[in-house]
Amino acid sequence: MEDITIRFLDDFSKDEVDSPILIEGLPGIGHVGKLVAEHIIHELGAKKVAEIHSIYFPPQVIIEENSVIRLANNEIYFYRDDILQALFLVGDFQSTSNEGHYLLADQYLKIAEEFGVNRIYTLGGFGVGHLVEEPRVLAAVNRVDLKEQAEEAGATFDNGEPTGGIIGAAGLLLGLSAYHDIEGICLMGETSGYLVDPKSATSLLKVLSNLIGISIDATTLAERGVEMERMVQKLIEGEQAMRDEELRYIG
Amino acid sequence: MEDITIRFLDDFSKDEVDSPILIEGLPGIGHVGKLVAEHIIHELGAKKVAEIHSIYFPPQVIIEENSVIRLANNEIYFYRDDILQALFLVGDFQSTSNEGHYLLADQYLKIAEEFGVNRIYTLGGFGVGHLVEEPRVLAAVNRVDLKEQAEEAGATFDNGEPTGGIIGAAGLLLGLSAYHDIEGICLMGETSGYLVDPKSATSLLKVLSNLIGISIDATTLAERGVEMERMVQKLIEGEQAMRDEELRYIG
Amino acid sequence: MEDITIRFLDDFSKDEVDSPILIEGLPGIGHVGKLVAEHIIHELGAKKVAEIHSIYFPPQVIIEENSVIRLANNEIYFYRDDILQALFLVGDFQSTSNEGHYLLADQYLKIAEEFGVNRIYTLGGFGVGHLVEEPRVLAAVNRVDLKEQAEEAGATFDNGEPTGGIIGAAGLLLGLSAYHDIEGICLMGETSGYLVDPKSATSLLKVLSNLIGISIDATTLAERGVEMERMVQKLIEGEQAMRDEELRYIG
Amino acid sequence: MEDITIRFLDDFSKDEVDSPILIEGLPGIGHVGKLVAEHIIHELGAKKVAEIHSIYFPPQVIIEENSVIRLANNEIYFYRDDILQALFLVGDFQSTSNEGHYLLADQYLKIAEEFGVNRIYTLGGFGVGHLVEEPRVLAAVNRVDLKEQAEEAGATFDNGEPTGGIIGAAGLLLGLSAYHDIEGICLMGETSGYLVDPKSATSLLKVLSNLIGISIDATTLAERGVEMERMVQKLIEGEQAMRDEELRYIG
Repeated sequence: MEDITIRFLDDFSKDEVDSPILIEGLPGIGHVGKLVAEHIIHELGAKKVAEIHSIYFPPQVIIEENSVIRLANNEIYFYRDDILQALFLVGDFQSTSNEGHYLLADQYLKIAEEFGVNRIYTLGGFGVGHLVEEPRVLAAVNRVDLKEQAEEAGATFDNGEPTGGIIGAAGLLLGLSAYHDIEGICLMGETSGYLVDPKSATSLLKVLSNLIGISIDATTLAERGVEMERMVQKLIEGEQAMRDEELRYIG
Repeated sequence: MEDITIRFLDDFSKDEVDSPILIEGLPGIGHVGKLVAEHIIHELGAKKVAEIHSIYFPPQVIIEENSVIRLANNEIYFYRDDILQALFLVGDFQSTSNEGHYLLADQYLKIAEEFGVNRIYTLGGFGVGHLVEEPRVLAAVNRVDLKEQAEEAGATFDNGEPTGGIIGAAGLLLGLSAYHDIEGICLMGETSGYLVDPKSATSLLKVLSNLIGISIDATTLAERGVEMERMVQKLIEGEQAMRDEELRYIG
Repeated sequence: MEDITIRFLDDFSKDEVDSPILIEGLPGIGHVGKLVAEHIIHELGAKKVAEIHSIYFPPQVIIEENSVIRLANNEIYFYRDDILQALFLVGDFQSTSNEGHYLLADQYLKIAEEFGVNRIYTLGGFGVGHLVEEPRVLAAVNRVDLKEQAEEAGATFDNGEPTGGIIGAAGLLLGLSAYHDIEGICLMGETSGYLVDPKSATSLLKVLSNLIGISIDATTLAERGVEMERMVQKLIEGEQAMRDEELRYIG
Repeated sequence: MEDITIRFLDDFSKDEVDSPILIEGLPGIGHVGKLVAEHIIHELGAKKVAEIHSIYFPPQVIIEENSVIRLANNEIYFYRDDILQALFLVGDFQSTSNEGHYLLADQYLKIAEEFGVNRIYTLGGFGVGHLVEEPRVLAAVNRVDLKEQAEEAGATFDNGEPTGGIIGAAGLLLGLSAYHDIEGICLMGETSGYLVDPKSATSLLKVLSNLIGISIDATTLAERGVEMERMVQKLIEGEQAMRDEELRYIG
């Protein structure tokens, strides 16, 4: 067993792919990046072309709804039409070890190079510790001349925020790709950091759509956002009710 | 020293083995899998054919009752009669590291392939956080067409439960074997998760017996279950007595 | 840099060594093993013959009293007279990782084999959680026929105690040596587990002296034991005094 | 991807370097070593000659003020004039794992050997747990004959302090260099251990300047020290005010 195994599916021909962009949306803060990448895959009908297994993922299988298991993995999807050609990197987990983060990112970049990727978008969340009414989309780049495009698309640059840097695949892919002459833009949706956040994902999707020049229907994502807000509202009301209840007991 | 060392015992001839099933019962939740596998080994008189040592096990020796030590290990047993031919994977520990889980599972599958195994049963517990009166046996499979057999044998499929997936050898063996054309069924006895649970093991044994087509006397396992229940009952009564005592002090 | 580096000192000729015993006394519970091994080295005037460095030790240097630093290490000493020929394995630390424990023990056994060692004594403490008036010396062996000798020398065998097994070098050296036809006896001095315990070490030294057939002056070790007891006594009295003081405040 | 990658910058010619000293100032207690090394680099205008990336660093990118990211790294700077020729080792992080500490230190020493370094200064803090009015500079050496120089330069040797040894790069570089015939002096500025400490760095800088025979303007470092003290003073006053406030509520 290799430490990292990449299996391309049999019905995939690498010849279909010619210098696509790469969009990474692995699990992370608020699952913002994951929500966006999986939403685009779903809306465009991108097809799965590879599965990635690794000893750096948790030693775990996922049970699908039909009770059939599958190894925890990361997956690559591909989409191509006249306007857009894109690879998507999504999956169940990121690495469980520091070293694994680097080694996985390095493999992902090898794939990117093999297909002639010259731009990577990495997507994530930017945790601010409180609910955000109108989530901004922060950006960071691996070359200064990319800032203008990102700003025009609606992203914000905020004096080196997040000051703690960017951890995991979204950061490393950008950092390492600079040494392979691949441009990289990281988009981070503002989010509380406590909940899966489709609202923040909707904001991020808008900026990314502008950048990649296609329009993606955000309806289902927005709906999940509204639903989530309703749920949060109920949680808050429930807590308030509990507190009132307690006051009644005391008073 | 290899990272994983497999020593086949001298009196074992690999030629005896021809496409057996493999039953895994390593330590885990409620030790349900371990209890079942070791019970079958004992009842059938399966013989030990290999010892597995690894730097991924705890750095520890076990002291046997005669004060002779032995390295912490996993072991393989073999049984063959006219009806059943089976390898058993049992042992003291699972891996102490995430990576080790994968590397050990990979080695176990290499052994399985060497002997022509085409079906694996992995056994475990499914922790529910409370005592269970009539423990169900949940199942998961690595190919959808295995569900019918498992259900007929008395296993339950419950909408992708456990939602947290299956961790460790029981999960990985199933997940990895799918890439080696080996069928896999995981059986998980419902259990509180707090105690070694022979009662859950008895339920699991019944389902497994149906699947492998032999009848195993469950008496000693059932007796240990009854004994364990008596012990739990005493613990509960003891706690109740303590609480009553406290009330007397207060009241 | 090798993961484990063994440097034999220039003034040491391997030809001096011919089938010695190996005595291991690395840091552990109550530092009992370390105290005994270093005491014997000191009393006999054994000389240092090798230094062992490893990435599995803490990334740390020790500052000697003259403010000169040295890498954390393990060391091998050698002693030979007409009655006894022995290698000693002592040092600052054991491995910081599970895997490192195995890999270090494996290297130690390679050295043992190189010198024709056919018996290993591993020394340690057996923590019982309370102060012990007359510490017993528990033993475990890697071959059942070694028990008689150990008992005659004053060691106790107690139904597979310690039930938790033996962790680290003292255990692994015994467990692994069984596969190299090397006899192994582990001696464990009973100790509270809270303090460095020269008293327990004195008991252990007596048993080991009987086993290796030489008499080692235990005076300095016994004195440190008496001193330690006095210190503990003061601690207890101090605590008692504090409690009395508190009662006075309350009362 | 190598586990450790060293990239020398294109405009750097190794021929410029001929037996320099090496000054290490990586992050550590009070960031004393880092402050000193980076201050000297800045004052002298030393130029960056290499970047070091490693899977042993945190899997993280740093966001610069212009929102351009860069991989977490260590860096080597070089300075040469008529009096001084020096390499500087500075950076964002030390290793995240014990093993990585050794492997990184080993690589740093390979670089040192390549350039003919025969003396290393490692800089750090010595945490004492309370604010220090006049921070001493403790020293440790890897050869006893280096003590006199260090003392003459103003360093203090204090009976094997710090008794806990020296952890990380500052310790390992000294310990490992002894095996490469490289002299090593570790200077540790006394510091509380709770705060970045430019005052302690100023003391250390003075001793180091004496040792390397050049005068470095300490003004900006001293100013940061004064500023930090003012900040600490405010924190203390704020806390005092809060306590007074509380007393008012109670009283």
